[in-house]
Amino acid sequence: MLLYHDLRAPNPRRVRMFLAEKGVAYDTIEVSIAAQAHQSDAFRAKNPLALLPVLELDDGRVLRESMAICRYVEEAVQPEPNLFGVEPWERAQIEMWNRHAELELLWPISQVFRNSHEFWKGRLKQSPEFAEIMRELLVDRFEFFDHSLATRPYVAGERFSVADITALCALDFGRVSKLRIDPTKHASLAAWHARVSERPSAKA
Amino acid sequence: MLLYHDLRAPNPRRVRMFLAEKGVAYDTIEVSIAAQAHQSDAFRAKNPLALLPVLELDDGRVLRESMAICRYVEEAVQPEPNLFGVEPWERAQIEMWNRHAELELLWPISQVFRNSHEFWKGRLKQSPEFAEIMRELLVDRFEFFDHSLATRPYVAGERFSVADITALCALDFGRVSKLRIDPTKHASLAAWHARVSERPSAKA
Repeated sequence: MLLYHDLRAPNPRRVRMFLAEKGVAYDTIEVSIAAQAHQSDAFRAKNPLALLPVLELDDGRVLRESMAICRYVEEAVQPEPNLFGVEPWERAQIEMWNRHAELELLWPISQVFRNSHEFWKGRLKQSPEFAEIMRELLVDRFEFFDHSLATRPYVAGERFSVADITALCALDFGRVSKLRIDPTKHASLAAWHARVSERPSAKA
Repeated sequence: MLLYHDLRAPNPRRVRMFLAEKGVAYDTIEVSIAAQAHQSDAFRAKNPLALLPVLELDDGRVLRESMAICRYVEEAVQPEPNLFGVEPWERAQIEMWNRHAELELLWPISQVFRNSHEFWKGRLKQSPEFAEIMRELLVDRFEFFDHSLATRPYVAGERFSVADITALCALDFGRVSKLRIDPTKHASLAAWHARVSERPSAKA
């Protein structure tokens, strides 16, 4: 398998961390967003949306979208350790929390970056006022996750899952926009962050 | 089963359409966003995020997030007709296209509505400039979907899937923000829209 990725972007990291948990070997090609390599014709032939990551299988088939890639790996390549849940209710809980992590953390955090960080200045049209709206939303969302993690060790319950990967990659990506967990306010979230960051896969 | 929903919002419609395809019976409680019922303490006890839809099972368990609800229904309530795919590659394709429909259509369309429609004026802080950025992105995304649908009848391939439900609910919701498919520009997308809109479930 061949992963097209960028080392700084959060969605490729989700896939690398997932593959590290699975212990699956793969090759990589770096497609640097900073160098605009994701906009090249060569990469657009792999993904017309010019988004990372992309997974290319050994037979040449191509899969876009981080969660489609992770699900395929769990179902067709390496089922263990299970990260999407085993029976329907657990699977639904993990899906729910993975979506909360994605839509309530990763998405607003990405929008703060996209709309206010100097990385994108002159590269695309930004809306600093929307970045502020997202910053305000995130105050509430950090609170929500902190509250949820007060009663259990992992985002979706008693065990580590893909929802923890999404939440960790989201929150770590927030740092470049000065969105940080304040341990004095969000002790449970900070404790969870320390717990999950200790996993070897967090370095992937 | 009991579905908390709003008749005008796109995410509850995704679930209603999914349940209609499955032929599953359920009760509903309308939580009117226009009347701010989603912000009530009673509803926040069901979903602290104040988002719709929410599914309550007969034993009182509660599930948030449209796609977590749909997956649970397919896996635990009514597997047929299959809408998430059967074998891993097909499941990955459907997941990929469902995410494209969600992240590249539904999300930007929802942001145009949220940031520029008079419905939200005075109810939350809007960013008309971000709405414009999303409108520009959608020109490209309509093109992408039109191009993709030139070679196949449904969003994820040869058969109807949950990805068609997401795309239909997204595009129909775009109308309130004057985001419309132009059949002279996007003939394949328009033909697909007519095809999917004919399904009885589209009225759900």
